Amino acid sequence: MRRLGRVAIVGVGLIGGSLAIALRRAGAVTTIVAADRDLQALERAVALGVIDEGAGSVTEAARGADLVIVALPVRAIGPALHDVGMAVESHAVITDVGSTKGEVVRIARQELRERFPRFVPGHPIAGREASGVEAATGDLFRGARVVLTPETDTETDAVDTVRACWEAAGGRVATLTAATHDRIFAAVSHLPHVLSFALVSEVAARSDAAELFSFAAGGFRDFTRIAASSPEMWRDIALQNREALLEELDRYEARLAVFRTLIERGDGPGLERLMAEARSARHAWSASVRRTVSSE
Amino acid sequence: MRRLGRVAIVGVGLIGGSLAIALRRAGAVTTIVAADRDLQALERAVALGVIDEGAGSVTEAARGADLVIVALPVRAIGPALHDVGMAVESHAVITDVGSTKGEVVRIARQELRERFPRFVPGHPIAGREASGVEAATGDLFRGARVVLTPETDTETDAVDTVRACWEAAGGRVATLTAATHDRIFAAVSHLPHVLSFALVSEVAARSDAAELFSFAAGGFRDFTRIAASSPEMWRDIALQNREALLEELDRYEARLAVFRTLIERGDGPGLERLMAEARSARHAWSASVRRTVSSE
Repeated sequence: MRRLGRVAIVGVGLIGGSLAIALRRAGAVTTIVAADRDLQALERAVALGVIDEGAGSVTEAARGADLVIVALPVRAIGPALHDVGMAVESHAVITDVGSTKGEVVRIARQELRERFPRFVPGHPIAGREASGVEAATGDLFRGARVVLTPETDTETDAVDTVRACWEAAGGRVATLTAATHDRIFAAVSHLPHVLSFALVSEVAARSDAAELFSFAAGGFRDFTRIAASSPEMWRDIALQNREALLEELDRYEARLAVFRTLIERGDGPGLERLMAEARSARHAWSASVRRTVSSE
Repeated sequence: MRRLGRVAIVGVGLIGGSLAIALRRAGAVTTIVAADRDLQALERAVALGVIDEGAGSVTEAARGADLVIVALPVRAIGPALHDVGMAVESHAVITDVGSTKGEVVRIARQELRERFPRFVPGHPIAGREASGVEAATGDLFRGARVVLTPETDTETDAVDTVRACWEAAGGRVATLTAATHDRIFAAVSHLPHVLSFALVSEVAARSDAAELFSFAAGGFRDFTRIAASSPEMWRDIALQNREALLEELDRYEARLAVFRTLIERGDGPGLERLMAEARSARHAWSASVRRTVSSE
């Protein structure tokens, strides 16, 4: 990729920090500046060598940048884009890492106005249990899928720049429409989170919750691991992707009703058939994931 | 514990094999004999030193045993108990390891008749992804909870014998009624399995399943790990514990409806409150599990 002069990162947490490390390691950038509401995080990012300098504000970071990466939770992207739009030069490319895309695009159009064609909506599918810049690692995106959802008026060279950055970080970039992205992630990510939160919420609300939890084992642990995720972040994702998520909830509830009917009727063969189909799909998926990862 | 002379294990898979290894290691038994429909598994169990001898039938294994452990999936317990009841001496203690207890007790009463007071219904909460006697390990039950659900007519010395065996294997034994056991495990185990199977089943049934799966990541992996479990086993558990499971499904669907309403209404504070309660309950549980395990 063409080397970028100045990259501004807004939000130097796990994602922003990891991308900074990966871009520098790939020799893709000369200077990395960052802004963060948490000034201590910014200091630590400099001390750790993740970024070159901390900026006093989003505006200050964005000024003179060739690429601005807004690495914030979905709800904070709008206000940050507002400031970025005020400060950024016309050649600069802007991108984000938000988990929903339709709503981010709507807000970006509103906040960036004439700069909108330089904005490339993005979503890297990567994470780890730890958060913050201390958890950042240059390998976070190695082999990870990264979705870009350019609009019809997004400029091609802007998409190419963002794609090149993610590829330099080891990501496998796919392009989808924002609507397709939101439908897919409602199904395979947002819905499972809501289902998991709902199970723990139901058990925890009971008078005998302590006894119930005391007998929970490995299956419960795996199923509910995502219910330990950030409530603020998942509240925002659920609400930003409300329409697609409600459609997925409809589908899920319909499928659960089929399972319920089979159980009520004592229909062993029917129940086994659905469970066996699910298991083989799960096995096939898990085998394909292993292949993908090991081939990189 | 008082050393047992002859222990018969019916079904020498992961659970039966692991208990055999643990009992021998604890010096709790003189001779271990086993029966298994899979004659090769029986041979391997002898070759691995997990058991002393393979028997040609359940009847043959049970004859002369001081303790008979039926380590089979729930559906196979009835026929095995029938044969055990025909062969066993009056002093012998009989137990099982089935994941449901109410239905096992009903069937045991029917099959064992006058021997029923010697039967101690049991359920060790342990497992691993691998199965079969090759996966058996003497540490499987170390720190694991084991539930016994004696009935009012179960003889006390029989309960004491089974309790001593599990404790010798490192288990932490609790006594519950069969109904309480089934209600608890419907909530923290059987329901999550059905919910996980239902999600994968729903996604797999779509025309764009391949695309959906291709973007699934860590959250999906954890949530659906239990959908890779045995369809035959979970079909039987769901049907044997049908009543309690349907009650749990009712409760869950009601809670999910609350989440749905909050999402529909865009009620951020309400959604965050439920998610935050779930997260702190999940954190507290996960911390208590770590403490339990590390204290042993």
